[in-house]
Amino acid sequence: MVEKKFPLTKEQLKEIVKKYPTPFNIYDERGIRQAARRMLKAFSILPQFKEFYAVKALPNPYILEILKEEGLGTDCSSYPELLLSKAVGITGEDVMFSSNETPDNEFLAAAKLGAVINFDDITHVDIAANVLGGKLPDLISFRYNPGPLKKGNVIIGKPEEAKYGLTREQIFEGYKKASALGAKRFGLHTMVASNELDSSYFVETAKILFELVLEVYQKTGIRIEMVNIGGGMGIPYKPEETPVDFDFVARGVKELYDQIIEKNNLGPVKICTECGRIITGPYGYLVSTAIREKHTYRDYIGLDSSMADFMRPGVYGSWQYMSVVGKEGKSPDMVYDVVGSLCENCDKFAVQRQLPKIDMGDFVVLHDTGAHGRAMGFNYNGKLRSGELLLKEDGSIVEIRRKETVSDYFSTLDYPGLKDIEL
Amino acid sequence: MVEKKFPLTKEQLKEIVKKYPTPFNIYDERGIRQAARRMLKAFSILPQFKEFYAVKALPNPYILEILKEEGLGTDCSSYPELLLSKAVGITGEDVMFSSNETPDNEFLAAAKLGAVINFDDITHVDIAANVLGGKLPDLISFRYNPGPLKKGNVIIGKPEEAKYGLTREQIFEGYKKASALGAKRFGLHTMVASNELDSSYFVETAKILFELVLEVYQKTGIRIEMVNIGGGMGIPYKPEETPVDFDFVARGVKELYDQIIEKNNLGPVKICTECGRIITGPYGYLVSTAIREKHTYRDYIGLDSSMADFMRPGVYGSWQYMSVVGKEGKSPDMVYDVVGSLCENCDKFAVQRQLPKIDMGDFVVLHDTGAHGRAMGFNYNGKLRSGELLLKEDGSIVEIRRKETVSDYFSTLDYPGLKDIEL
Repeated sequence: MVEKKFPLTKEQLKEIVKKYPTPFNIYDERGIRQAARRMLKAFSILPQFKEFYAVKALPNPYILEILKEEGLGTDCSSYPELLLSKAVGITGEDVMFSSNETPDNEFLAAAKLGAVINFDDITHVDIAANVLGGKLPDLISFRYNPGPLKKGNVIIGKPEEAKYGLTREQIFEGYKKASALGAKRFGLHTMVASNELDSSYFVETAKILFELVLEVYQKTGIRIEMVNIGGGMGIPYKPEETPVDFDFVARGVKELYDQIIEKNNLGPVKICTECGRIITGPYGYLVSTAIREKHTYRDYIGLDSSMADFMRPGVYGSWQYMSVVGKEGKSPDMVYDVVGSLCENCDKFAVQRQLPKIDMGDFVVLHDTGAHGRAMGFNYNGKLRSGELLLKEDGSIVEIRRKETVSDYFSTLDYPGLKDIEL
Repeated sequence: MVEKKFPLTKEQLKEIVKKYPTPFNIYDERGIRQAARRMLKAFSILPQFKEFYAVKALPNPYILEILKEEGLGTDCSSYPELLLSKAVGITGEDVMFSSNETPDNEFLAAAKLGAVINFDDITHVDIAANVLGGKLPDLISFRYNPGPLKKGNVIIGKPEEAKYGLTREQIFEGYKKASALGAKRFGLHTMVASNELDSSYFVETAKILFELVLEVYQKTGIRIEMVNIGGGMGIPYKPEETPVDFDFVARGVKELYDQIIEKNNLGPVKICTECGRIITGPYGYLVSTAIREKHTYRDYIGLDSSMADFMRPGVYGSWQYMSVVGKEGKSPDMVYDVVGSLCENCDKFAVQRQLPKIDMGDFVVLHDTGAHGRAMGFNYNGKLRSGELLLKEDGSIVEIRRKETVSDYFSTLDYPGLKDIEL
């Protein structure tokens, strides 16, 4: 099996934990910047390419600052995410606002930020116009759900069973309605996959959208100036998996762009993506300490973290690469269930995993936790969520989110007996 | 289908939302008290019966206060849960501390509170003794994992694949070790089911434990004075399901108690349970407002809540009863997917559900959310978790947990741009 690398040594970690005890998430600034650059470079063959980073994957302003410097925008799905984007100075059309069951106040906030509002439903046209004083912003996008025309992927399921987007017929009606309500510029979006590794999938998605751009023009006379082929680019959680090939996708999309958009004089169309996982996922690590060892019907290693810190294995049964810092080269002689401390039997980071012998105090690293990691944490069982550190390009470490405290856990309770309580 | 009742009318809800906008959880004090009383009454045929309420199910001190008044203790699994118990004055042997991968400081805190410490592993005996200055507390319990001797249930899986508890052989060794380290009184515990409705399951569990009590005595001379048959009693989420029969369980356990414990002069043994769901589950409701209606490949109703407020359907695919307040008697002419606003397609509270026609502004109630509901909430997608209300026996409403705010969401971030930010 190919080894995945953790960018710190045991000695370095020993220094870090003096100030920031485990468990914590640590993100590798260099890796994140390089991923953003690789993507932008590959897609630079497309006119005005823009990647809107999916804030939900890693909603930390210090990370968003880095991505802003690299030229990325944000894809926001809620009011707090819009605020994060504003706080780091990503505003206007560098923000895509894609949400569903959107409450009125979020349409208003997105408009105030100047974000590209991406309607998830035909009814949102009237609702947003109403909220915004009768008139829509200049630039409006629609989320298309191709329904049975497109095969879904494992995670997101069949498009026709997904709650997202407008049907084909509604798309045409939507642009006409939006135009009548003051919109002058138009975008088109879809998202039919999650954590997909098949590069051709994204090219096919572009084809569906480009053909729809043409059809919208033919049927309504409306020119679409922005096509967002969505996110959903996966990462190789398993070392034997093959990453999405940015160049393959970009070239495939460019070819279709020339064939459909250019050939029909519908250009320029700005091509966009809204990936999260592929930008930060592989460059995040949940670092824990092995604190308990147990030998019953199986051999267990207990960590000081839990699925409260990283839910994917517990909730989705996902496989995550694991390494034991300082024992990277050692032969994996043991078979462990490496578990968290939640009172849920699914709280296992690795099940029947071959690993080198783990000693108490060893640092155990879960890889690829830089997206949908800390962001999905919860407080079940009274667990406090981990903090976040940044490994900067110069090798220094900064804390970019503090660990939760008991006071945080009790903060929504107004109960006299909890004041300054301890044991 | 049998209807489940929501205890408030539409008119009453309209008044409540003036002060507490949806979504919120509301708990029915009367229902909770009655459930506790029904259980205690049935089990009163057992000597010194004690139910330790599983705090993880609904970790709210106002609810724990009610349960304390009814004579329940607490089952805690973490430091914050021990603090909650202390705050409401549930201390000493009214607290069971059952955790796994337990960190040192939690053994210390549990001992300070005088809780019954329930060891999940044989190694914990030495670890706890060491943490506690070389000597264990008087009363110590062990969690037994029957392994292949007991069939698991659907949720918790096969016992031999579960991370919890000691093997049969370790149990005997454990009591001897604990005795050598100063423990003088002993408990025995197991928990091999979750949300189980088969009443006989709990009787079988008692049999396994009582036989082990006898065997421990025969092999070690140690008398066990406390047997905790665990939690895991399910509730009928589906109206056609049959609830656990407390009387059946209590009588079955009593019969075995007489046959095994009394007959061998091993009494009195205090019989305990650590249920959460069955006490509060059916008496909690997530109240949302229908804010969006969508007709694409299916008919959707969008609520102002999401799986951030209640995760079971999204994460476990669980079925939850749903009602539309004021339309309880109406014929279910529509088939809806009733969804939350998370950008996850699994965020659906009901899928292809027959319901009366829902109008925008209708109050949609998800039933049986009083356990593992708000407690499992997360902040994914920047969602803010709901508050909690209590419907008191006198009909008044009090807020027992406030809704989260944007400031709560940002509280672990020290980022200048987020100060007083709004849109």
